[in-house]
Amino acid sequence: MSIPSPLDLLASLIKCPSVTPNEGGALSLLESILKPAGFEVHRPVFSDTNTPDVENFYARYGKNAPFLLFAGHTDVVPPGDLAAWKHDPFSATIENGEIYGRGATDMKGGIACMVVAALRFIKNNPDFKGSIGFLITGDEEDVAINGTVKLLKWAQERGENFDYCILGEPTNPDKLGDMIKIGRRGSLSGKLTVHGKQGHVGYPDLAHNPVPDMMKLLEALLAKPLDQGSTHFSHSNLEVTTVDTGNPATNVIPANIKAAFNIRFNDLWTFDTLQQELRQRLESVADGRISYTLDFVPSNAPSFLTQPDDFVKQLQNVIQSVTGAMPILSTTGGTSDARFIKDYCPVIEFGGIGKTMHQVNESMPIADIEPLTNIYEKMAEAFFASH
Amino acid sequence: MSIPSPLDLLASLIKCPSVTPNEGGALSLLESILKPAGFEVHRPVFSDTNTPDVENFYARYGKNAPFLLFAGHTDVVPPGDLAAWKHDPFSATIENGEIYGRGATDMKGGIACMVVAALRFIKNNPDFKGSIGFLITGDEEDVAINGTVKLLKWAQERGENFDYCILGEPTNPDKLGDMIKIGRRGSLSGKLTVHGKQGHVGYPDLAHNPVPDMMKLLEALLAKPLDQGSTHFSHSNLEVTTVDTGNPATNVIPANIKAAFNIRFNDLWTFDTLQQELRQRLESVADGRISYTLDFVPSNAPSFLTQPDDFVKQLQNVIQSVTGAMPILSTTGGTSDARFIKDYCPVIEFGGIGKTMHQVNESMPIADIEPLTNIYEKMAEAFFASH
Ligand SMILES: [Zn+2]
Ligand SMILES: [Zn+2]
Repeated sequence: MSIPSPLDLLASLIKCPSVTPNEGGALSLLESILKPAGFEVHRPVFSDTNTPDVENFYARYGKNAPFLLFAGHTDVVPPGDLAAWKHDPFSATIENGEIYGRGATDMKGGIACMVVAALRFIKNNPDFKGSIGFLITGDEEDVAINGTVKLLKWAQERGENFDYCILGEPTNPDKLGDMIKIGRRGSLSGKLTVHGKQGHVGYPDLAHNPVPDMMKLLEALLAKPLDQGSTHFSHSNLEVTTVDTGNPATNVIPANIKAAFNIRFNDLWTFDTLQQELRQRLESVADGRISYTLDFVPSNAPSFLTQPDDFVKQLQNVIQSVTGAMPILSTTGGTSDARFIKDYCPVIEFGGIGKTMHQVNESMPIADIEPLTNIYEKMAEAFFASH
Repeated sequence: MSIPSPLDLLASLIKCPSVTPNEGGALSLLESILKPAGFEVHRPVFSDTNTPDVENFYARYGKNAPFLLFAGHTDVVPPGDLAAWKHDPFSATIENGEIYGRGATDMKGGIACMVVAALRFIKNNPDFKGSIGFLITGDEEDVAINGTVKLLKWAQERGENFDYCILGEPTNPDKLGDMIKIGRRGSLSGKLTVHGKQGHVGYPDLAHNPVPDMMKLLEALLAKPLDQGSTHFSHSNLEVTTVDTGNPATNVIPANIKAAFNIRFNDLWTFDTLQQELRQRLESVADGRISYTLDFVPSNAPSFLTQPDDFVKQLQNVIQSVTGAMPILSTTGGTSDARFIKDYCPVIEFGGIGKTMHQVNESMPIADIEPLTNIYEKMAEAFFASH
């Protein structure tokens, strides 16, 4: 069996129009490569109310522990304004040392390199003890309901026990080797409504304007920092994302005003302690005089940290040995499926360069493809040497 | 020539569907009564860009000074939810001592009583020296562009010189005799936009959230009262009528946020001094660090006061002699066409009860109709006795 080049595999993956939640041929392509190489492949489809069914992918080579899991997603965000792209976003055009296409770096690049790395590792270590697996979803970029979270549960119910996971999201801000992610901030959104009494601006005594009340509540939310950061996290941050009265009449005092906010929080908080803090801040100024309702949007994004132990240091060294750069350990940025995986085994994230993800002309430097494949292969070597 | 009863005339006026800016037959009805009584009648139609043409009405009895002008409008606001009305809003149904209909109190009631009062005064004082006039518009309730403001200018160009004006708007909060209006607060609206930089909530350092900036600016506008009121006015008041970011995405820091406000201001302010004060308040906190734009909506509603001189005291006494109640002199409420008339002659406002104006089931108590007619007739007597 011949192992494809990671560049060829990436080009083939880009050509699969797997705009979320469509499979687009991407998972079948992976199956056609991993199955002949001795992987046991499953393609579970998950369903839920009000969301489309989504195809998922699970593959395992080997029967024994220790079990190294590579994880990722083949779905991509829509290409957006096609006219703004230099090349068809599903053409995998190569130009000036870059391969272009939607998903090139987020994260078909990571998947292509991980798959080839695993095949090379197995070829180079035919007698290794343990298992290598792939847990790939088609539902990461949108609602993430029929994807990784259900696939992990499905695997657990089959008796799969992972010892470590490498998620191939594009973690490097500028160049390959910049950054490993060892955790993510949590995300919590809330909706605040202040109730007033509508009336004519000429008769303010007969009305109650909710705008100044809302200002007091938002001030209370923003008054002092939630924290000063922790060892591995920057400070938690609250952003008011919208304030709306939706009152087109210039002579009417509005009845209500709504605001929404989002908090990215570190490991000093849980959903419970954070909600409690926010309720206290609001109550301290509302004090029975401001009529408001606060609703939190259900969130599946807690904060988490994978302890940067000796093995993480080994992974840093692997990256330095290939790229010459010692990656920093970071918890910045948005959320990822690592927040689900962390409940099953330690998880770190490393992949391509994030700069062009979700943008027009998303691309991956050709020069990064062999080094990233090399890194994943060496990470597997380090894992099986130390576990 | 027989004089109609004010109740019959009010019923006939209510039956004219003069929903602004339609004439609905109301002005023709007035012409059919005043012309045979010896009034010279004009029906000027005024036009402007982007507004419908509007019919207006001007009538004068007599050629000489002094000139007492009765003013008002026959247009009415739309009836709104027809199903919520007890009776057809244009049927003038009488029930339990009330005559119902759109415009019953605002202000076909005032017009019917003024017209009958003038006819009775002329009949009872055939040798009075002076003139009585009617300046009635069909464009008060909406944009007020092709109404009183142009009709006054038109009359001035004809050489008409008014000595005093009684505007028949419903000025009484609860019962006939409560309140004369001797001025009105001014109205100024402004629009405030704060410019930020859009971005993802996960990367707040790459964005600039305009919401906290807007909060600072609105706080500065609301920080201290504009004034403590003046002899005849309550304090000026600023209401924030809307705050809007229009940002549906919970994970996006908005690029801009807009707010609008309206100020009802007393005779301590002109448009210029008020705008200057607001700009200073904003600048004191913006201080070059907050990027914002402030636009004032052009306003034709300054504040004004008709000095409560001896003649106003006579008018108070007239009302007390008919109703038993001594009306207070007030400047409360919204704006009215008095703000235009005050540039031509002193103007006071007195009419029906305001409670049901612009509401469903607008009505006027039958028991108020003869007294109000009586008041207007006695006001004319007082005017010609003292001028
Ligand atoms: Zn991704
Ligand atoms: Zn009116």
